[in-house]
Amino acid sequence: MLTEFSVSTRGPGLYEFTREVKRWLAGQGDGLMTLMVRHTSCSLLIQENADPEVQTDLTAFFDRLVPSSDHPSMSYLRHTYEGPDDMPAHIKAAIMPISLSIPVQSGVPMLGTWQGIYLVEHRRAPHHRKVAAHFG
Amino acid sequence: MLTEFSVSTRGPGLYEFTREVKRWLAGQGDGLMTLMVRHTSCSLLIQENADPEVQTDLTAFFDRLVPSSDHPSMSYLRHTYEGPDDMPAHIKAAIMPISLSIPVQSGVPMLGTWQGIYLVEHRRAPHHRKVAAHFG
Amino acid sequence: MLTEFSVSTRGPGLYEFTREVKRWLAGQGDGLMTLMVRHTSCSLLIQENADPEVQTDLTAFFDRLVPSSDHPSMSYLRHTYEGPDDMPAHIKAAIMPISLSIPVQSGVPMLGTWQGIYLVEHRRAPHHRKVAAHFG
Repeated sequence: MLTEFSVSTRGPGLYEFTREVKRWLAGQGDGLMTLMVRHTSCSLLIQENADPEVQTDLTAFFDRLVPSSDHPSMSYLRHTYEGPDDMPAHIKAAIMPISLSIPVQSGVPMLGTWQGIYLVEHRRAPHHRKVAAHFG
Repeated sequence: MLTEFSVSTRGPGLYEFTREVKRWLAGQGDGLMTLMVRHTSCSLLIQENADPEVQTDLTAFFDRLVPSSDHPSMSYLRHTYEGPDDMPAHIKAAIMPISLSIPVQSGVPMLGTWQGIYLVEHRRAPHHRKVAAHFG
Repeated sequence: MLTEFSVSTRGPGLYEFTREVKRWLAGQGDGLMTLMVRHTSCSLLIQENADPEVQTDLTAFFDRLVPSSDHPSMSYLRHTYEGPDDMPAHIKAAIMPISLSIPVQSGVPMLGTWQGIYLVEHRRAPHHRKVAAHFG
């Protein structure tokens, strides 16, 4: 079966939607659940949902790894039409996953104790992100 | 069902094969399509297919992140038998995806408007790359 | 069908478990096999299994890309409760895959000649890692 999740974002960071995914799968049997973002400037991550500092540390690391295109070290970038966060967003979307597959047992995704499902927004402006989902 | 796509490459860069994938899926119903490169020195990406500068910027970024092994900063690398682009290719293949899963609706992959499917070649010499594919 | 693989680790590095996966699939038909680590501080990789220096070079690269949090360049990290390898492990787990999908033909994963399946441990202490697996 197919569905589409919507995640509204207000700037860079991690947005958890584990609950929505679990609700969709509830009552199903064993199988495989796959998520894919339908965009090229955001990502999907399974990460720790216990300490929020994991999320801010992750964002801080990737901002240093891939600075804005107005940073001197990034002056070689050409695709900058939508602003200094445009091409860095595409690069981050090439490093972090855009699709995730999770085995499901009796309608419950086989996530570890501390694993949550996140959309990672790389753009500064608010966006409505769509995540295609398949279970079978 | 299974198939294998072939992508011929002529040096580093992105090679789109969205059309071949769509043709294979045409006429199928709902399901999940998975691609996996059968090599350890190239990757798969879903990226923007509108502006070609996204592709050259991506390649430029990863060449700076993972320079050739004859670059002074990479002198610690040992696996250099096939040339200075050998081990960097393996590293890039650990950063960018080698398998991708895409939900399919009525025989059409649920890609966003600007999303194309690419093989990313990391080696300098021409290669014939094989991509295993499953739909079900 | 579902199962769970266990991989015991003794510090950072790559741990191959291709043989266990192949044994589980033997006798099955065509399909898709998916693996997902149930942790947020280790990864999964398909990499070359011919030359062990590929593995040590990979680890060496990622240790330079994401140094310990007691390294001066990483002083901005906050999530350091479990030691200097804590947050770097989460970051590496955001860069390298945590789920992999592999097409299977007549009970044999369609891996290339040199491809092996590895769990990548990012933590220094010994761990028992669990990998959820689905075939269908």
